[in-house]
Amino acid sequence: MATVPLLSDEEAPAESRAVFEAIRAARGTDYVNNFWRALAHDPALLRATWERLSAVMGPGALDPLVKEMVYLAISTANGCSYCVHSHTAAARAKGMTSAQHAELLAVIAMASQTNALATALAVPVDARFMEG
Amino acid sequence: MATVPLLSDEEAPAESRAVFEAIRAARGTDYVNNFWRALAHDPALLRATWERLSAVMGPGALDPLVKEMVYLAISTANGCSYCVHSHTAAARAKGMTSAQHAELLAVIAMASQTNALATALAVPVDARFMEG
Amino acid sequence: MATVPLLSDEEAPAESRAVFEAIRAARGTDYVNNFWRALAHDPALLRATWERLSAVMGPGALDPLVKEMVYLAISTANGCSYCVHSHTAAARAKGMTSAQHAELLAVIAMASQTNALATALAVPVDARFMEG
Amino acid sequence: MATVPLLSDEEAPAESRAVFEAIRAARGTDYVNNFWRALAHDPALLRATWERLSAVMGPGALDPLVKEMVYLAISTANGCSYCVHSHTAAARAKGMTSAQHAELLAVIAMASQTNALATALAVPVDARFMEG
Amino acid sequence: MATVPLLSDEEAPAESRAVFEAIRAARGTDYVNNFWRALAHDPALLRATWERLSAVMGPGALDPLVKEMVYLAISTANGCSYCVHSHTAAARAKGMTSAQHAELLAVIAMASQTNALATALAVPVDARFMEG
Amino acid sequence: MATVPLLSDEEAPAESRAVFEAIRAARGTDYVNNFWRALAHDPALLRATWERLSAVMGPGALDPLVKEMVYLAISTANGCSYCVHSHTAAARAKGMTSAQHAELLAVIAMASQTNALATALAVPVDARFMEG
Repeated sequence: MATVPLLSDEEAPAESRAVFEAIRAARGTDYVNNFWRALAHDPALLRATWERLSAVMGPGALDPLVKEMVYLAISTANGCSYCVHSHTAAARAKGMTSAQHAELLAVIAMASQTNALATALAVPVDARFMEG
Repeated sequence: MATVPLLSDEEAPAESRAVFEAIRAARGTDYVNNFWRALAHDPALLRATWERLSAVMGPGALDPLVKEMVYLAISTANGCSYCVHSHTAAARAKGMTSAQHAELLAVIAMASQTNALATALAVPVDARFMEG
Repeated sequence: MATVPLLSDEEAPAESRAVFEAIRAARGTDYVNNFWRALAHDPALLRATWERLSAVMGPGALDPLVKEMVYLAISTANGCSYCVHSHTAAARAKGMTSAQHAELLAVIAMASQTNALATALAVPVDARFMEG
Repeated sequence: MATVPLLSDEEAPAESRAVFEAIRAARGTDYVNNFWRALAHDPALLRATWERLSAVMGPGALDPLVKEMVYLAISTANGCSYCVHSHTAAARAKGMTSAQHAELLAVIAMASQTNALATALAVPVDARFMEG
Repeated sequence: MATVPLLSDEEAPAESRAVFEAIRAARGTDYVNNFWRALAHDPALLRATWERLSAVMGPGALDPLVKEMVYLAISTANGCSYCVHSHTAAARAKGMTSAQHAELLAVIAMASQTNALATALAVPVDARFMEG
Repeated sequence: MATVPLLSDEEAPAESRAVFEAIRAARGTDYVNNFWRALAHDPALLRATWERLSAVMGPGALDPLVKEMVYLAISTANGCSYCVHSHTAAARAKGMTSAQHAELLAVIAMASQTNALATALAVPVDARFMEG
């Protein structure tokens, strides 16, 4: 179904296998999901993506679950089916309850609706909303 | 710049003025922003949007600031300039710090990047990410 | 503000001026809007776009105003500000009332909302909705 | 394939079952499609969505089939596969002929093309297209 | 899975069969892919799309492979799964190497990321980037 | 107009000023464009974006101008006005002629059109277009 073969550990170049090992170690599971296996054709892109992802989603000013829900929101707006599935699963793994998931969906639906209205009405930005 | 005139209090139909008053009361400010003034041509749509927004963004399973940041994320992905401005301001009003804003942007950038990669590679969804 | 200069009649190549004349004749106005002046750098693209537009938006199985409202809906979903403005004006010129405009916006808002929910929930297509 | 289980009548909470019954009564069919079964985890969101959808898509200033075609146009631009399928089926059920469907697709294709050109050229909005 | 039946040579109207033959002749293969079979319900749209596509993708100021990669980039950003598959295959047929594919993906990912940042920050356009 | 102040050299944190200097050195100009000044609030994000951009857009398997045109295509499809402006200017600086620009726009328009048709028709992917 993909546009490139998903590489198994045996098929992946050595540099990509090393990233697979980093993913396994960071996540405490032997499972490496399809996204990384598709990226494994390009070890430099695979490594850059994994390392930046780890830095961005790691401890910081926002709660890890909040970041995961923001990721899911963006994936929904971009219509990325793979990303919607993987980040819904990731959010659940980080403790998202069914009530939180439902509320997240309600916010996403609300925002999508008012986004369309503001665009169709071409509402000019209020001066007080500008900073720079 | 809009596709409809923005209605002042005097120009708005009585039913829309009543919603303006509800907005003022809920927000503790006399200022009614342009989005509502553009919607005021259709009192039914104005009321339905305001009431549902209040229900969705009010107290619930998620923190109000988290919901505001999700709203901002969706607005960014949808390319709605008005919404990006108004919800950045709203998030700041609810306590978003500069560090949190920066981290939110980093998550949005990360997700946009991996969304594009997953779409271009047409990565098939891992069985373990499916629920229904 | 554009990424190319908008060509006046004097600046436009002869082949583009000929398309400007076709636009004037078809619309019964001397005014040629900015979109065509931006395309005028490439007479072949200008002509192909104008001729196909005329064929598609002309008499057919759908009412011209309905087609204009569909055009506006697509422009909204694509976040094309120029297109939202020009096709709102075109729909009004073809008779769209304020009540019809308001109802169109309500449909656009509704669809944007349920689109986001269906994507976030990754709802599988019901067998009865498939044809081919 | 979904990110939540699709709830059967037996699995759905009582409040969601009541909405299922409202859908059946309004549509004159026993079949409740997957979208509603996915929303059934959150009875409040299910009810709000169904009730607003009924109000928006019911009798008004626009023909019901026109509204359904606008819905389909938005679903296409948003890349929502489920919505494209369900609203194509709904438009057919409301009388859309093959000729109308073909013409709708031609308008959608035309708009998508000129939207991209207007965005790439960053065409400034003509003063005469502004209202507010 | 489609919203219309995919027409075989036998089912297609004569005018659409003639376009199928033009496609076969131009591509030197007997295979007509699903996109054209879905469009075959509307011979006028089928012919207009095929002829314009041939003109645009034929010899010109840009290398044919470059045009194919731009097509793939747009298809990715629009989240069109069919288009991503068919234009990845077309780019390979025109000589895209694995290294070029990988680098194309890296550019697409980079652009998607900075697009999101520029939108979320609402960066004003520098005067020197404007032409018209 | 931005959602954050654009930082001058004096206002920017030292780590961001260092990135400004790297940008100046790489581009051989004293001008630092607004995008980088908006990112300067978060030195880590600024540095990561600049360094990855430099790696991706530098010498590789694809011609630098081709990469710039792909960047512009993605920016168009994402509706990012700032990016459309800055990458049109960048492509011109790397030698894009008016004829190449016109042809690029024609490809973008063509792809946007067929993307919409493939999505609205929900065309199933041909088996021969799948790899993985």
